[in-house]
Order: sequence, then structure tokens, then C-alpha cells
Amino acid sequence: MFRGLSAFPLTPFSDDGIDEAAFARLVRRLAAARVDSIGALGSTGSYAYLTRSERKRVAGLAVKNASGIPVIVGIGALRTRDVLALAEDAQALGASGVLLAPMSYQKLGDDEVFGLYATVANELSVPLCVYDNPATTRFEFSDELHARIARLPNVRSIKLPPVPAEPGAARARIDRLRALIPSHVTLGVSGDASAATGLNAGCDVWYSVIGGLFPGLALEITRAAQAGLAQEAQRLSERLQPLWELFARCGGSLRVVAAAAELRGLVRRPCLPLPLMAVDGPQRQQLAELLDRWGLQ
Amino acid sequence: MFRGLSAFPLTPFSDDGIDEAAFARLVRRLAAARVDSIGALGSTGSYAYLTRSERKRVAGLAVKNASGIPVIVGIGALRTRDVLALAEDAQALGASGVLLAPMSYQKLGDDEVFGLYATVANELSVPLCVYDNPATTRFEFSDELHARIARLPNVRSIKLPPVPAEPGAARARIDRLRALIPSHVTLGVSGDASAATGLNAGCDVWYSVIGGLFPGLALEITRAAQAGLAQEAQRLSERLQPLWELFARCGGSLRVVAAAAELRGLVRRPCLPLPLMAVDGPQRQQLAELLDRWGLQ
Repeated sequence: MFRGLSAFPLTPFSDDGIDEAAFARLVRRLAAARVDSIGALGSTGSYAYLTRSERKRVAGLAVKNASGIPVIVGIGALRTRDVLALAEDAQALGASGVLLAPMSYQKLGDDEVFGLYATVANELSVPLCVYDNPATTRFEFSDELHARIARLPNVRSIKLPPVPAEPGAARARIDRLRALIPSHVTLGVSGDASAATGLNAGCDVWYSVIGGLFPGLALEITRAAQAGLAQEAQRLSERLQPLWELFARCGGSLRVVAAAAELRGLVRRPCLPLPLMAVDGPQRQQLAELLDRWGLQ
Repeated sequence: MFRGLSAFPLTPFSDDGIDEAAFARLVRRLAAARVDSIGALGSTGSYAYLTRSERKRVAGLAVKNASGIPVIVGIGALRTRDVLALAEDAQALGASGVLLAPMSYQKLGDDEVFGLYATVANELSVPLCVYDNPATTRFEFSDELHARIARLPNVRSIKLPPVPAEPGAARARIDRLRALIPSHVTLGVSGDASAATGLNAGCDVWYSVIGGLFPGLALEITRAAQAGLAQEAQRLSERLQPLWELFARCGGSLRVVAAAAELRGLVRRPCLPLPLMAVDGPQRQQLAELLDRWGLQ
């Protein structure tokens, strides 16, 4: 399950909670495109902004609309007690795997993070993906900590932050980590701009934001890399460079992808939970032009 | 209300939620010491780790046990909708003021933070303190943004991060901000190690962690500074230098103050919500020796 293209859809909000119909449509787009897995309630799915009952609804809808494609559900929360409850919910609703970031308010230490994963991993009946995302958690995993956690029961993948842009450096980074973790644990790249480089450097899976909205685009890159066509994967990614630059200028991918979904009428506007706001003004205009130019619907 | 010593108690956790009896005792200690205000559900009170109903219980207990001392209640949450609900709860329970940090999972932009404060400030019936704490929120306020927010209705104080250690630099920092904000908005220092310097530099209030557990210690420093005895305030603070160093070495004050409360039998162990852990090992031993040496009960 933790291989190929894992596509992370938005969770579209509405005035009174979740826009369930729009979310179901987003999931069905991914199922129709035959992505390898669907990552519901990732950072792109705004898991941190939802109540437990909202998260249950979203996880259930994801499984129901995935046409049998494995659904990975984000179970991160600030408190271990809540993570355990969310894991139970996800499993009961048919999640094939779970994704766990060391979400923080107080910056966490290594022992606290290891304790969290050890407690949760021992309780699971489905595989777990370790979600390493310092941009949102402020926690920096050392390779040694990754190695300790990767040996816990049920741990089967690590979702890494962007790899270095230079292919040799990216390869060295993945090789170094690979040497420290068990072979049954896959390595995944995130940060869409670095996906082709990461896959070419030996990552097994791309945990993809853009793939959650425009799966065809991300599948093209993924399948090229999987076929060993490294240059082709790189070329397809470089074609999207203006989009990657927009991500970088707008504090990450979320506010851009939310605007893209709004522009394409796939969700209502605003689709993000306040205080978050999708990109607006000239950047939104530029995004609209890119979507048109690339024929993305 | 936003002057003098504002003391922030821990929220002690237990296996099945909040240790309400221990929390009530902590609040009564502060009331007995006649601190100027009590800051319930600050970062030290682990507001981010509690459900809405737990926060209601804690806010209610704080007001009930404060013997008429004003209680400021933390209303921070990731989602604006939740902040509004928490503000309503706090006001209904008798809070004299509220404290709001721009808590984040996705790093926030200036417009998003201004939008949050504008929305909330307009709904309040009690004064608000802006909680500027980049160590937990990852949001860096510019002075210009402080100035814009300070002009919103109901804003009456800013809880600042530590001031520069050098007295002249601290004074310059406070003077610069003071010149930009309305005179009815007080400035408060936090980061206990920098409190004496901050008060001597012109801060109106110390938002204090150590004052939430050992109010006498913090009142001594505050009253000296308020009386214009700058050197005396500084001397009293420097005497506590080993404690400030322990805070710095242990990722902040929370895990140290939690251990101190456990060591003194004021709360049960563990009193922090997992994955957070109070300091242990040699650092806990050192803390115990300091508490003994200073006769802190």
C-alpha cells in the first residue's frame, strides 16, 4: 500500500462543517484515476482543524468512495490519548493504514516522540506510516530516531520532507536512511516539487498534494519514475515549475491547491477553515492561468 | 487587570482527564498570595491539549477558586470557529479577560492572524490579551501587526516573548513597541528568566510561569520592580539563575514546573498529558535540590 502514488485530497469545509458531497467527489476522482492509495486527513486534508466526529465522517466517506483503493487515514493529535481514539475510529471505519505526525504545541523531545509512536504502534491492527513534516510539527527527526521507530511493530513507511534538489545529494540522503531502517519499511517523498527527484533517488512512494486534486498529473510523473525513465519524470515535473514556485511563495501547497479546487468548481469558496485563507489576488489569477494553460479540470 | 503579576497555574492531568481537586488547590494558593491576576489555560495550563468541555471545567474552577481575583482564560485554538466558542464559554463562566495566541498547524500569514483577532475582538464582551509566543505558535508578530491588532476593540494587553537580556536593549525594544500602540494597551513580559529585565524596561505586567506555582517568589520580584527598585528586582531574579538555566536546558518552563509541582506533592505524577513528560533523571534531582535550598513548598 505504501508504494507508488499516494494522493492526498483536501477536506472541503462549508459554513456548518464539512462539505461532504464535495469531499466524496474528490475521492471518487482519485479512485477513477486508479491512484495507488488515498491519504485522507493528511495536512492537505486539514486533519488538525477537525473534531473527532468530523474526522470520523471524513474517514468513513473516504473508504466508502475509494472503490477498494487502500485509504490511509491521518490520526495525528496533540495528545496521545486522542491519537489512540482516532486510530480506533480509523480502523473501525475500514482504513487500510494510518498516518501519524508528532503534532506539537510544546515542541517535543526525542523521548516524547518515541514514546508516542511506541504507544500507538503497539495498539494498531493496521500498518502505520510515520509522518515526518517539520514544517507543520516543528519536530526534526534524526535518522537514528527514524531507525528506532521503524523497528516498532506495524511501522511500514516513512513520509519524508522534501529531498535535496541535487540528484546526487537526494540519492545520498535516501541511501543513508535506507541503510538504517528495516527493508519492510518504505520511504516516501513529499513536497511535490521534490517528488520526481525523490522517486528517482529511490523513494518507493510519493505522498502527493497535487495528486489529491489532479491525479493524472502526478500519476504521469510517478509511472515514469517507476519505469526507470528518470529524465522523463524530471522533465514532467519541471514543466510544473511555475506551480512549485507558487507553492513556495504562498507558505506551502495547501492554500494554492485549495484555490485551484475553488477555481475549478470542485469545492465551494471558501473551502479552508478560518483563519486559513486560500490564495487570492494576483497569485490566484496566475494560478487560474496555469490551470487553463495545462488544461487541468 | 493586565498589570503587576499575572500567575499561570498548571492544569494537572490525571488518568481519566483533569485532576480537578489539585487544580483548585493551585488556584487557591495564588488567591491566598494575592497575585494581581490568574491566567488559567495558558501554555502552562496546557490549553491546547484539552477538549472544549475540559476547558470549560478548568475555567469554571479557576473563577470559583480565585476569591475575586481576576481570571484571564486562554481561548486559543487552531480554528476560528472554535476560538469563538471558547470565548463564549469563558465569558459565560465569569472570566475577566481572555488570552489569545495565533495557534497554528499550517504556519499563518499576517492577514490570517489579523483576521483571527479582528473576528474574535469584535465578538467579545471582556478585554483581550494578545498572546505573542513564537516558541509554541511559530508565528512572529511584526511591530506593525501588533499596532494594527492593538487598535481593535477590546484589546488591552500584549503578552510578549522574552525581552533582550541587556537592559538598554530591553528598554529600546519596549519603547519602540510602546510608541506604536495605544496607551490603553499594556505590555507584558513572559519568559520568567527575562521578567525582571522586562519589568525594569517598562513592561506593565509579568505573565509568569513560576508565579503560577510559587507566587511569593514572583511577587517579590514584581513588587521590587514596581517600586522602582530595579537593582533589587534584578538581584532577586539572578538568585534563581539555576532555575532559568534548567528551563533553557529542558525545552522551556513547562516540564520543569510540572516536575516541581510533582516533587512538592501538589499534583499527582505524571501531571502532564502524554506525549509530554516532566523532567526526569539528574535534572529532576537538581530541581529537587534547588527547591529544598530555596525552601519552596
